[in-house]
Amino acid sequence: MTVYTASTTAPVNIATLKYWGKRDKTLNLPTNSSISVTLAQEDLRTLTSVATSADFKSDNLWLNGKEEGIKGERTIACLKDLRKLRKELEDSDSSLPKLSEWGLHIVSENNFPTAAGLASSAAGFAALVVAIAKLYKLPQLMSEISKIARKGSGSACRSLFGGYVAWEMGDLENGEDSKAVEVAPLEHWPSMKAAILVVSDDKKDTPSTTGMQSTVATSDLFQHRILEVVPKRFEEMKKTILERDFEKFGELTMKDSNSFHAVCLDSYPPIFYLNDTSKKIIKLVHKLNEQEGKIIAAYTFDAGPNAVIYYEEKNENKVLGLIYKYFKLVPGWDKVSNQVVDFEDSAIEFDTDAYKGVSRIILTKIGSGPQETSQTLVNEQGLPK
Amino acid sequence: MTVYTASTTAPVNIATLKYWGKRDKTLNLPTNSSISVTLAQEDLRTLTSVATSADFKSDNLWLNGKEEGIKGERTIACLKDLRKLRKELEDSDSSLPKLSEWGLHIVSENNFPTAAGLASSAAGFAALVVAIAKLYKLPQLMSEISKIARKGSGSACRSLFGGYVAWEMGDLENGEDSKAVEVAPLEHWPSMKAAILVVSDDKKDTPSTTGMQSTVATSDLFQHRILEVVPKRFEEMKKTILERDFEKFGELTMKDSNSFHAVCLDSYPPIFYLNDTSKKIIKLVHKLNEQEGKIIAAYTFDAGPNAVIYYEEKNENKVLGLIYKYFKLVPGWDKVSNQVVDFEDSAIEFDTDAYKGVSRIILTKIGSGPQETSQTLVNEQGLPK
Repeated sequence: MTVYTASTTAPVNIATLKYWGKRDKTLNLPTNSSISVTLAQEDLRTLTSVATSADFKSDNLWLNGKEEGIKGERTIACLKDLRKLRKELEDSDSSLPKLSEWGLHIVSENNFPTAAGLASSAAGFAALVVAIAKLYKLPQLMSEISKIARKGSGSACRSLFGGYVAWEMGDLENGEDSKAVEVAPLEHWPSMKAAILVVSDDKKDTPSTTGMQSTVATSDLFQHRILEVVPKRFEEMKKTILERDFEKFGELTMKDSNSFHAVCLDSYPPIFYLNDTSKKIIKLVHKLNEQEGKIIAAYTFDAGPNAVIYYEEKNENKVLGLIYKYFKLVPGWDKVSNQVVDFEDSAIEFDTDAYKGVSRIILTKIGSGPQETSQTLVNEQGLPK
Repeated sequence: MTVYTASTTAPVNIATLKYWGKRDKTLNLPTNSSISVTLAQEDLRTLTSVATSADFKSDNLWLNGKEEGIKGERTIACLKDLRKLRKELEDSDSSLPKLSEWGLHIVSENNFPTAAGLASSAAGFAALVVAIAKLYKLPQLMSEISKIARKGSGSACRSLFGGYVAWEMGDLENGEDSKAVEVAPLEHWPSMKAAILVVSDDKKDTPSTTGMQSTVATSDLFQHRILEVVPKRFEEMKKTILERDFEKFGELTMKDSNSFHAVCLDSYPPIFYLNDTSKKIIKLVHKLNEQEGKIIAAYTFDAGPNAVIYYEEKNENKVLGLIYKYFKLVPGWDKVSNQVVDFEDSAIEFDTDAYKGVSRIILTKIGSGPQETSQTLVNEQGLPK
């Protein structure tokens, strides 16, 4: 029995210009373009191995050690698209094995606990699509492949690139122009770092797909956001990245996070993702920037209370020093430097109990796109190790 | 020594279509029209007595038993306008005493604790302006007088009427057309009741004048709110009042509260008035309306975390019964009926600790405008009793 295998890792990305709203739910076509920073895979990544063989009669999926099967229609849509591209190759070269007709085994693991509350679907679908594209030896460029990942989970398309990434919304009905593109590679501005404060929350958030649909249908302010605010901000933010202008980049990032949460609140019934701890962190960042007289740290919040704080490496002592001062009791500080620990910030007053609302901190930085890896999660029979 | 005196009470009003944004800070001219319900003065009112005499050489103000003096430029502006109207009377009838030239003593008291965190400036300025207008025997209609109260505190102009009140923004630069008008009197729809949950808050809110200026200057969504959303909602809400359509009135009230807090959040830095307890109350109201299959309760929040819940008297057992179930341990339930206490709502699940974030409840209803009163706070010498 010949078993063909491939493995890849794929990163998490955190949007600085938010994706919120679908114009087509099945194809995951957005109502606005978005921008993200890809995070380092040493801290946050999905590893996915895929295997196929003429003996595999059906598809199967194992996630974090558990057999899940292929249930979701989004996963099925991705597999269908990937098989179609493989079929085109096979039709043009009859010497190729007919992988497109065989069952697929997909084995996937995250290097971070799901309990961290970080959206893992972006990294997950990116890894799944890229691993199969490699297995199938598809010649398409990453932007083309990103359209398939997009059907799995909208923001997954942005995880197909490292560095600074845009998802261009496109305007075709079939979604063929709604894809991820690189704004700038990691190397262009490698000093971008990120501290993620994982905020504890007792309530279950509105799932983002449900939330988006509600905002599109009910918010009176939403149309203004997507038609007027975001298109302008999209061009401005790309420019700040190309110019490595952290002050402006940070300001736009914070404003867009607030704008996104504002249209959530303007939905009916209102949707709340920020809690009192999130708000305290927002205020702390504004106090820091105010003290410095310029923006050296920028928060952003996805569809949940976790704070992602972007900053440049040169300001690490100031930014992390302040966060350490008030959140040193939460886990995650193992790799922090002595300079950060010893940093003294005297002027800023802050709620000394705020750390109680935070369960851990993840210290990370900008990172690269999906990587080939010699690690594999499948054995020679194409089953999970 | 002849001392002339007059006394009045004036009510609190709570907006159902929010005033947020000034187009002229000195004249308190708003960027949008607003609508409010005037609340019953047996629960919440300011009582103000004024006295004047040829022997009073200067103006003075006593507030809740404490001599404050006339310090605020807004108070000074109100006194100046009132004296000008009195002067016109005196000029046209030389037999009138020259009250406009004499000092004014103003003595004012609220029947509710300032600690309740309820904006008392509206009732306060309304009572001050109406008391002096009575003292001066001004012939102007309440809408005219409301323009003077508006200069004291924007929303004070709406406290010059009972029942359902609109503040028409006007468009003249001098503000002469920016005034309160009656949408419908108390008697038109007298069954409107209100429960105010006073929410504890450890942080100091952004003062509303500062907050408004920040929103006008920085929120990208704000212009859409004032130019597109509110003008339409203003007409719709007046219609729902005239038709006594609580379902639609309640929906518009909740949506406008959310829209107002959304543009606060979209300000830069963002402004937060709702806290986690406010959000829990919002969810509870939506759950109740969902269970009933129609809107029988509507929340609204001003520039702070306190919830005002409007409902119709016929639904008191359902609405107050549910609130009582989860907030019975907070003070303020003295006058509640047995039917409310015994009301059992089995289906709705809610955070049983939420009451810990609430310091008291105030049960009240729609009320009338400023009232003449035989009560007085000044003695025969025109000094505080």
